[in-house]
Amino acid sequence: MENCCDNENWKFQGNKELNAASISVRGVLNLLMLNIDPHHHRPTIMLGSADPTDFPSYRITSSAVDAVVDSVRSFCFNSYPPTVGIHSARSAIAKYLSQDLPYQLSPDDVYLTAGCTQAIEIALSALARPGANILLPRPGYPQYEARAAFDHLEVRHFDLIPERDWEVDLDSVEALVDDNTAAIVIINPSNPCGNVFKYQHLKKIAETARKLGIFVISDEVFGHLVVGSNPFVPMGEFASIVPVLTLGSLSKRWVVPGWVLGWIVTNDPNEILKKTGIVESIKNYLDISPDPVTFIQGAIPQILETTNKDFFSNILSIMRETAEMLYDRVKEIPCLTCPQKPEGTMAALVKLNLSLLENISSDLDFCLKLAKEESLIVLPGATVGLENWLRVTFAVEPPTLEDALGRLKAFY
Amino acid sequence: MENCCDNENWKFQGNKELNAASISVRGVLNLLMLNIDPHHHRPTIMLGSADPTDFPSYRITSSAVDAVVDSVRSFCFNSYPPTVGIHSARSAIAKYLSQDLPYQLSPDDVYLTAGCTQAIEIALSALARPGANILLPRPGYPQYEARAAFDHLEVRHFDLIPERDWEVDLDSVEALVDDNTAAIVIINPSNPCGNVFKYQHLKKIAETARKLGIFVISDEVFGHLVVGSNPFVPMGEFASIVPVLTLGSLSKRWVVPGWVLGWIVTNDPNEILKKTGIVESIKNYLDISPDPVTFIQGAIPQILETTNKDFFSNILSIMRETAEMLYDRVKEIPCLTCPQKPEGTMAALVKLNLSLLENISSDLDFCLKLAKEESLIVLPGATVGLENWLRVTFAVEPPTLEDALGRLKAFY
Repeated sequence: MENCCDNENWKFQGNKELNAASISVRGVLNLLMLNIDPHHHRPTIMLGSADPTDFPSYRITSSAVDAVVDSVRSFCFNSYPPTVGIHSARSAIAKYLSQDLPYQLSPDDVYLTAGCTQAIEIALSALARPGANILLPRPGYPQYEARAAFDHLEVRHFDLIPERDWEVDLDSVEALVDDNTAAIVIINPSNPCGNVFKYQHLKKIAETARKLGIFVISDEVFGHLVVGSNPFVPMGEFASIVPVLTLGSLSKRWVVPGWVLGWIVTNDPNEILKKTGIVESIKNYLDISPDPVTFIQGAIPQILETTNKDFFSNILSIMRETAEMLYDRVKEIPCLTCPQKPEGTMAALVKLNLSLLENISSDLDFCLKLAKEESLIVLPGATVGLENWLRVTFAVEPPTLEDALGRLKAFY
Repeated sequence: MENCCDNENWKFQGNKELNAASISVRGVLNLLMLNIDPHHHRPTIMLGSADPTDFPSYRITSSAVDAVVDSVRSFCFNSYPPTVGIHSARSAIAKYLSQDLPYQLSPDDVYLTAGCTQAIEIALSALARPGANILLPRPGYPQYEARAAFDHLEVRHFDLIPERDWEVDLDSVEALVDDNTAAIVIINPSNPCGNVFKYQHLKKIAETARKLGIFVISDEVFGHLVVGSNPFVPMGEFASIVPVLTLGSLSKRWVVPGWVLGWIVTNDPNEILKKTGIVESIKNYLDISPDPVTFIQGAIPQILETTNKDFFSNILSIMRETAEMLYDRVKEIPCLTCPQKPEGTMAALVKLNLSLLENISSDLDFCLKLAKEESLIVLPGATVGLENWLRVTFAVEPPTLEDALGRLKAFY
């Protein structure tokens, strides 16, 4: 037999299309982490991801952990779940989300997903018929671009305007649409910008989509994580104007991204998503996809009912402090500008003035060197579609942010 | 504003490609369940899926549940995991699988997945460069066909021969291969056939793949679930001949499909999968995919170390009894033939002689009427690629199987 190491005899090779598709926050963070100097005298500070689980102040409330323990100890939730999710969990999520809506959602409107990551995957796959295109925000969340590339779904970007509180440039949206445009994606509270859209602006988005004949995908994974004065308004508020697919999860508000429990919800009183086959495509895709863990689904009713309001308000109170600190202290660093005080999510965008920096060629270059020299990770704006900006997480403990901002200043 | 119910104004529609892709075991079982008469006086018996979690004899051992409880109560595993999986879990799985191999796997060979469903998705996406094709068994597990359709990956089927203990028709494989063939899929122990491949046959498969320049995807999700005399041999045994991607999970051996914890393992001492870019594509795909739950990953070392051997042997002892019962009692039903006593997995294929049945047009028709009249669910062979066969699960309690076989006989 020939030597197996002789490559030329092997016919297969990797799928290079995945390289293009794999521009993800986590991929870039992996790259930055490789640049950390293991001999650095200070601990690494991670301001690159929206995952404050390791900080005591953000620790999930015990009642939610108890709910999971009760569920797994019951031995009732070890089987495959129904592909759409177990009824009690769908029902509890419908009730939870209906609190903020002018109508009641039905359990049948709710589809359980393996986190919001899978919710994005399902929403995009459901509308990605050959030739279709989708409108995505720039800056945005690159998981959308990655999944669209994998689905061969054409992406058309509209801008979010920093000078206008990161509102959608609605005038430009109309010119992007043709007969193959299926939907517009809104992320509210807005990742990566850190703003919260106002009621009237959301209504205008709904009316524009209605006029253009497209539906709205509203990514509300950061729903209720609001530290400014604009209240969180779910896009489902406007479902009588335009059908809305709402995406959400436990990950951010309950600070348990590792529990991988999300949802897709049809806010669609006129059943347009059903009549156009979007709902059937969602169900078909769920048939061939991994499920969210059954015993975590089983814990959902107890988690939603028993989580104390103090848990949420304590976290928001810390984040109000750190959002303020980020906004104020960035002013002391000449090469950085934060156009607006962060209003929500766990991060904000900060503009980088490269002309004030020596030997820094790009935002990625800045982040790589910052990782190496200061053991501080922030996300390059290019990852979220906006070169020469930085996405900086403020959902950490105040002393950690203080330390990080000190390192940032020292680096400059 | 116009009436929103006026469909013609909406431009979007569902992705019909997903309809073709969604021929899944779970989709067909959903359909059969709709045919159950809710007023039937007897409880429904499910012999259609490989999921005996609800039977006391198949209940997961308490030590594994304790491991999960310890993990979630530690508050150490609520964050996003590394996209490849957490190190301690990868290490424990490498050690566990190496027990059956002539060499030691490294933790870096192991990638954690959201169950074997996602392991299949990742393996196929990694090799699905444009134009590629893959060899799949017929009968087989339709998740492969569904994912291949979604990935636009061409499928070429080879036969498993019932008269030869369901061995691969190796003579026919060579004619199927061209320069774009990437891999051959083997499911061992074999779903849906219920056989266990012999060492020499597996070696021949490896040698054939080596000769043809393709790699082997070995789906060992039913690994060690053996009730006959052929021992389970992992395909990794032959990794010095041909590179092997092994797929597995906790779902079957630990009877916890709802925990959604699986793996992909590179058995590849010559690093062919690395050199050809398959490993990079796997990592890229993991970057944009949902993760297996972090605290279940955190429980893996304790689960693998503490599960008592009695847990496995008790289950196998029941399945030995039910496999025998199925094989013997089917002989009493003239329209059914079981070519071989089941040797492994949780189900076996039984041939249906339609000429002995009145008003039954197909295996699906048989299963639909059986559901309606007897509240008994078995899987139509067409779902697994073999018309006019049935896949019958024997992983149930003996009295349940006895009841089910009685209903099957009465139906005839």
